[in-house]
Amino acid sequence: MSKILNEVLLANRGYVAEFNKGDLAMPPARQFAILTCMDARLDPAKYAGLSEGDAHVIRNAGGRASDDAIRSLVISYKLLGTKEWFVIHHTDCGMETFTNEIMSDLLASSLETASVDASGWHDHGAGPGSTDGKFINWLTIKNQADSVLEDVKRIKAHPLVPGNIPVYGYVYDVKTGSLIEVPEATAAGAAS
Amino acid sequence: MSKILNEVLLANRGYVAEFNKGDLAMPPARQFAILTCMDARLDPAKYAGLSEGDAHVIRNAGGRASDDAIRSLVISYKLLGTKEWFVIHHTDCGMETFTNEIMSDLLASSLETASVDASGWHDHGAGPGSTDGKFINWLTIKNQADSVLEDVKRIKAHPLVPGNIPVYGYVYDVKTGSLIEVPEATAAGAAS
Repeated sequence: MSKILNEVLLANRGYVAEFNKGDLAMPPARQFAILTCMDARLDPAKYAGLSEGDAHVIRNAGGRASDDAIRSLVISYKLLGTKEWFVIHHTDCGMETFTNEIMSDLLASSLETASVDASGWHDHGAGPGSTDGKFINWLTIKNQADSVLEDVKRIKAHPLVPGNIPVYGYVYDVKTGSLIEVPEATAAGAAS
Repeated sequence: MSKILNEVLLANRGYVAEFNKGDLAMPPARQFAILTCMDARLDPAKYAGLSEGDAHVIRNAGGRASDDAIRSLVISYKLLGTKEWFVIHHTDCGMETFTNEIMSDLLASSLETASVDASGWHDHGAGPGSTDGKFINWLTIKNQADSVLEDVKRIKAHPLVPGNIPVYGYVYDVKTGSLIEVPEATAAGAAS
């Protein structure tokens, strides 16, 4: 067994020994959802004050409003009753350190399948005339406030997202732990 | 300001007051990633023993190996050096409570755009002859061990995923907090 697997299972045993959350209901008790980055430095439960059972947490590279994040948000609302959403990107994000072109080059050195669909949000296979696995938009970030605004706008404009859900836009500062509002994004995400 | 927004910002102020993690590096210190469900009852940092800076955490509805989750995993490996991955679904998952057809009906009552691509993994827009926003595979789950196995296999078979990454398959039990191995999935996810 790998060192990491062993450590994770040991830590889990400790969690189980103290566990007293077995009666929580499936729908989030505080009726909200957070979309944020997978970055290891971010702990949304800690930075936003969540206990088990409180809120949905959706995470991907960048905290982007990908098709899959929107799938999750729509399920969160429609089946599990969340009523407010947060989009939270962060400073010093890995998604700022490369571009679709750089990722394509990196992968091309070892793989024939690497190419990029710079035109759209489709993660995969959706480029014109594309082959499965051939086109990927890596959803890189140039400016955090811009990416938060872009994602809030994309969520609000999505045909499956109801107008009455407020979407708040924030940037998490990895140096201080602080959530900093992106006012244009929160305004764009206001309930209508 | 909404009650929830106020509570989140207050909790964040408390986190900032005690914050002493401002010097963490961007790459995950423990070099692994977890793909798990957005479910509010799951706190991966607690159930797997993660501190800030340790590991990437990717979350969506079901903890599914969607295109977007694979985008995130490839970035996690290729740019930020993770070397082992976990796929962790859980008991009593909301994704078992409905089907593509039910979701389609639910949405069709209020929206014209709801339809379903039952054929593939594409989240959105990838059905044959589809219009943007018209086809969605909600990635529902019938059996947790099966969905973990399916997702580990999909990750291992993906052309952008290198063969030398082990992928472990587990189910989290929401009644006990325990991680239960799916041995077939871990076997299918073994490094090659």
